[in-house]
Amino acid sequence: MNMIMALPGNEAFAERLAAARGGVVTPLETRRFPDGESYVRVVADVAGRGVDLVATQADPDRGFLRLMFAARALRELGAASVNLIAPYLGYMRQDARFNPGEAETSRTFADLISGAFDQLVTVDPHLHRHPTLETIYAIPCLTLHAAPLMADWIRANVDAPLIVGPDVESAQWVSAIAARADAPYAVLTKQRLGDRDVRVSLPDLAAHRGRKAVVIDDIASSGRTLVAAAEALAKQDFTLPTCLVVHALFVGDAFEAVSAVMQQVVSTDSISHPSNTIGLAPLIAGAFG
Amino acid sequence: MNMIMALPGNEAFAERLAAARGGVVTPLETRRFPDGESYVRVVADVAGRGVDLVATQADPDRGFLRLMFAARALRELGAASVNLIAPYLGYMRQDARFNPGEAETSRTFADLISGAFDQLVTVDPHLHRHPTLETIYAIPCLTLHAAPLMADWIRANVDAPLIVGPDVESAQWVSAIAARADAPYAVLTKQRLGDRDVRVSLPDLAAHRGRKAVVIDDIASSGRTLVAAAEALAKQDFTLPTCLVVHALFVGDAFEAVSAVMQQVVSTDSISHPSNTIGLAPLIAGAFG
Repeated sequence: MNMIMALPGNEAFAERLAAARGGVVTPLETRRFPDGESYVRVVADVAGRGVDLVATQADPDRGFLRLMFAARALRELGAASVNLIAPYLGYMRQDARFNPGEAETSRTFADLISGAFDQLVTVDPHLHRHPTLETIYAIPCLTLHAAPLMADWIRANVDAPLIVGPDVESAQWVSAIAARADAPYAVLTKQRLGDRDVRVSLPDLAAHRGRKAVVIDDIASSGRTLVAAAEALAKQDFTLPTCLVVHALFVGDAFEAVSAVMQQVVSTDSISHPSNTIGLAPLIAGAFG
Repeated sequence: MNMIMALPGNEAFAERLAAARGGVVTPLETRRFPDGESYVRVVADVAGRGVDLVATQADPDRGFLRLMFAARALRELGAASVNLIAPYLGYMRQDARFNPGEAETSRTFADLISGAFDQLVTVDPHLHRHPTLETIYAIPCLTLHAAPLMADWIRANVDAPLIVGPDVESAQWVSAIAARADAPYAVLTKQRLGDRDVRVSLPDLAAHRGRKAVVIDDIASSGRTLVAAAEALAKQDFTLPTCLVVHALFVGDAFEAVSAVMQQVVSTDSISHPSNTIGLAPLIAGAFG
């Protein structure tokens, strides 16, 4: 069985992953020098062992060098393989040069990760223009999906649900969750006017009135789409919906804004957040390690 | 002439470098998305041009990915060369595996920089176990020295100076500055007990009493060495010394602590700080670009 180590902030997830596998988390020492530089020390003997480094990639800038240092040290110390377990994978949204001169950060980030790790394991990366992670990552990528867990959570917790997806592009993902949850679905028509300004509309849902709307999305970032969805549902006389997302980024006051218009906000634990309800460790343990 | 661009926090230095060369700074657009990820856009046409990216490497973790994104974008947009101007170069102190399992951050950092840039220009890197930057950097490195500027500043501003160096290892550097400043010198004997705990002693300086002590060092970080030097000088009845350092890191309350025991604190502008007095832009402009 691979050894499991955690970068700062990932200790709890690593413990859950170890528990799901029936193992333990191996300590990894990290600290910052007073000048802000990172210190990393591998405490255990890793020679000949596979090592899974748990480091979700929300707000990845500050911890990036530390991640590179840990991966390199593990390799130099003889680890047979060094794998990145990133339940949330950042830098997936700048997947093209939308304006002249823009850095395609998704490719550069992928190259740096590919140079440091043997394999990447993640859940529901925000694939839009890149059809698969392997399009930009030079290492094997295990892409896992939270959809079955989300559908099962809905079945277990919501009576007569109506699944509401974030945009037309997500229709296939939404319909799969709806099918497994044995529920009808609808998707928003979305117009993005800026980082934090989104306008949405919904089809006529009169046929589903009386159902409990469950608004789903892959990433909750500014929360504007989710709030707009709740408002569009209110206009059609639905009661406060439930919100269910994979990745709970919730930047700034987004969580307060979303919570104000939802009966309940639920997420997976890909990013540590008070809304975490659905654990991904068993999914990862079942597929890898 | 190479184009000059600046990463955030380096705009003023880039302007001084441009002025020293008789050129201008070319804009580089950077911002953060609400989720903390970086956005970089090269605004100018760089095809076929050499580009000097000014990015001092104090507290390098948070800005590291942005630096990689900028360098890659410049290359992809056809820049003939992409050079890093880092007046202060970080990650030079973990230059060995002092304890089992430690990450040798200086090597990993050097590899990442070497993969992104064609050349590195810096001033007085903290070379200790690595004899030259090329030992760890795979790209040409232009290593410049502030010593002549420091000596000239002392000559112009301090009557009858006594140069006091930080440790026995620095004796050669200190003696060269003292020779050019036409002054005697002494060095501290230093015992480091931790990141922030340093004990020092001085030889008997009775022969130099009445001179003005100038305590010099390459990096002012915690400031403990500088404070200890001032205390050792006070015990030998010297008046408040002048402090002169190359790199003004001054973490936490270090600047207040050092200022309290010095008549004056002076630094080069390798790291932006209120103590900056000696400009390095002419030195760099004269040697590169």
